[in-house]
Amino acid sequence: MKAEIISVGTELLLGQVVNSDTAYVARELAALGFDIRYTCTVGDNAQRLAETLKNAFAHSDIVVTTGGLGPTDDDLTKQTCAAAAGKKLCCHEETRRRLEAYFEGRVCGPSQLNQAMLPQGCTVFPNDHGTAPGCGLTTEEGKILLMLPGPPRELVPMLRNYAVPYLSRWADGVIFSTSIRAFGIGEGSAAEKISDLMQGANPTAATYALENEMYVRVTAKAKTKEAAQALCDPLAEKVRQRLGGFVYGTDVASLEVVVVEELKKQHKLLATAESCTGGLLAQRITDIAGASQVFHMGLVTYSNAVKNLLLDVPQEILDTKGAVSPETAFAMAQGVRQKAHADFGVGITGVAGPKTSEEKPVGYILIALDDGERTYLRTMTGRGGRKDRDYLRHLASSNALDMLRRRLLGLPGIETAAYESR
Amino acid sequence: MKAEIISVGTELLLGQVVNSDTAYVARELAALGFDIRYTCTVGDNAQRLAETLKNAFAHSDIVVTTGGLGPTDDDLTKQTCAAAAGKKLCCHEETRRRLEAYFEGRVCGPSQLNQAMLPQGCTVFPNDHGTAPGCGLTTEEGKILLMLPGPPRELVPMLRNYAVPYLSRWADGVIFSTSIRAFGIGEGSAAEKISDLMQGANPTAATYALENEMYVRVTAKAKTKEAAQALCDPLAEKVRQRLGGFVYGTDVASLEVVVVEELKKQHKLLATAESCTGGLLAQRITDIAGASQVFHMGLVTYSNAVKNLLLDVPQEILDTKGAVSPETAFAMAQGVRQKAHADFGVGITGVAGPKTSEEKPVGYILIALDDGERTYLRTMTGRGGRKDRDYLRHLASSNALDMLRRRLLGLPGIETAAYESR
Repeated sequence: MKAEIISVGTELLLGQVVNSDTAYVARELAALGFDIRYTCTVGDNAQRLAETLKNAFAHSDIVVTTGGLGPTDDDLTKQTCAAAAGKKLCCHEETRRRLEAYFEGRVCGPSQLNQAMLPQGCTVFPNDHGTAPGCGLTTEEGKILLMLPGPPRELVPMLRNYAVPYLSRWADGVIFSTSIRAFGIGEGSAAEKISDLMQGANPTAATYALENEMYVRVTAKAKTKEAAQALCDPLAEKVRQRLGGFVYGTDVASLEVVVVEELKKQHKLLATAESCTGGLLAQRITDIAGASQVFHMGLVTYSNAVKNLLLDVPQEILDTKGAVSPETAFAMAQGVRQKAHADFGVGITGVAGPKTSEEKPVGYILIALDDGERTYLRTMTGRGGRKDRDYLRHLASSNALDMLRRRLLGLPGIETAAYESR
Repeated sequence: MKAEIISVGTELLLGQVVNSDTAYVARELAALGFDIRYTCTVGDNAQRLAETLKNAFAHSDIVVTTGGLGPTDDDLTKQTCAAAAGKKLCCHEETRRRLEAYFEGRVCGPSQLNQAMLPQGCTVFPNDHGTAPGCGLTTEEGKILLMLPGPPRELVPMLRNYAVPYLSRWADGVIFSTSIRAFGIGEGSAAEKISDLMQGANPTAATYALENEMYVRVTAKAKTKEAAQALCDPLAEKVRQRLGGFVYGTDVASLEVVVVEELKKQHKLLATAESCTGGLLAQRITDIAGASQVFHMGLVTYSNAVKNLLLDVPQEILDTKGAVSPETAFAMAQGVRQKAHADFGVGITGVAGPKTSEEKPVGYILIALDDGERTYLRTMTGRGGRKDRDYLRHLASSNALDMLRRRLLGLPGIETAAYESR
């Protein structure tokens, strides 16, 4: 069945608020196997909304609106939708009682009680986090129409607890999808490696770019979730084989999650010493709940004196090789590992820009990983590519995480920098 | 003039990605005085996009697309838009040279070079943060069509630097706006303080919520930029007076920018010791180019042993008061200030969740600021409010920055935590 989502709200049209509702609703509709071809946003204007509803019913079987259900004058979704569906509004007693209880002891004016007026014969979706209920109904022409509130904290639970169960009777099949995440390979190069795998209709494979990363999403539709997953699994496995060591996980949240989990599994302790990344690596690691099991010490050494003081980086190296040198990165990694009594030490030094230092190009960043036996070095040369500070800092911290991942899993390429020598 | 925004991308229709592009574009179009009545999203499907473009040109004078400009096969916005506009694609030499320079030393395949193929006679918008350029053109029927990339970090600067100047020739009058940024006051409370100032039509004042912050945007429309600014200035000044010490800047990028600039101005050195924020404060400070003038040392002390080792936090305090205690925060701030020979030391310790520790509630976070003469303490009690880890870590680092700002500027309220005791 075809589905369409209409968001109502002038604040969305003016860009004052980012529309996240559409994504929440779309995800649920897609998981139910409905085919979403179009979503749109209109302002708080009854005539435009009426036109938009008419178009939507002409093309789709299911129409979901978000927003415009509140008590103020510009909330006109309910009246407009009811008219388009050929239904009258009448008072829903249970909702009225609920509103009166909600406002107990406070002023509950007629505009508040107006929220209990709902289209005749509809299924009411209670609002467990606000006042305006939602509803679902079948129009006189046999189309399915749902009205949901705009604020995400009201919408998301109503969607999950009431709207999805209501819609599930019409679901013909289930969508399952799985995401294979990779670091160190661009979206374009990955697409070239798997271009033949991207031709199918069910399951499908598609590439997506993320900041510094990419992922491949494999999706299938079938009668049951298990059957859809069974269609996905072999294709996902082929994608993983083609992308090899670039893949850091399937259906995982981030590179840092994978590294922290692997450190936990191997009972290893990590310590970091950062110059140009300024604590970003420590921050990404400590973003993960439970990181304290594997990470006790992170140092941000933003001057030569501090590198010498905290990490015992020899003054001679700083004087003769410079703060931005492989020798300094080595000494930082080794120094912090020893100081923290850790299994692994990471040292990062470089030029994140916008100014160059020591005549080194912006983007020249050295990342050292010391495991007590050997010190590995990854070099970002700063030749070509993007030069903005945020990007370089993030890429350097991702390279450090990728080195750790490869070292922990015994994979080759520990010293190969992403987006540089490939 | 009427404008419409079309976002292209199956990932948006499936709800895999929240569409923030529409809001970015809508805000700029509204600021130019264009009338946006409708926005929509279509998948990576040439036929659906062609239909949608046809409808859009029937209703609007200006159509802006976002997304689908990349190098892969499902990026079909350019071909489809060019066809709808009655234009051929031809190679844009400057873009081709730019792409070759970008990929210097790396593989730059035909799909990458395809990004230099642009509609004949268009105005090219260079992509300063990626590979796919955007463009603007007038169709054979006299409509204005712009194509912009999907990734926000490419879209936003292109919009500001190239698309808005391109569109401004059609704007009737100029919109000027100025943003007054505040920390420590909620959007609702701020709106109450300035409700009478929010009633005007030109200039207007409106409140917006940001993560942990809020801002007031004052906007006016006039014949020239100078005339519009002259309308804004007195209202902006009134807003600043009403919000008082909560205001940290006007048209500034962030709280950390203001703090780093003020430290530079006063030639002061800052050092940080972080537990539950895990380096986020150091990372926010070093995000600002030139931070090395005012920041040399940041420590992430994620265990008691490290707090003792690096900061000389007395073992007795850790044993009797606990790692999450005002005494530990004091000792961290004092210890790191002394160790770094800095003017200011910040110490942060607390429970960011999801697990509690030492029987303290999630959200109980202590932030100490030591200036060598006095140590200030801000306490986030963890009572009420949001409990998610990212939010709490960000709010704690913002509280630290706000303490520094108030101390540097001699403002009261150094020890008053945001969103707690107000």
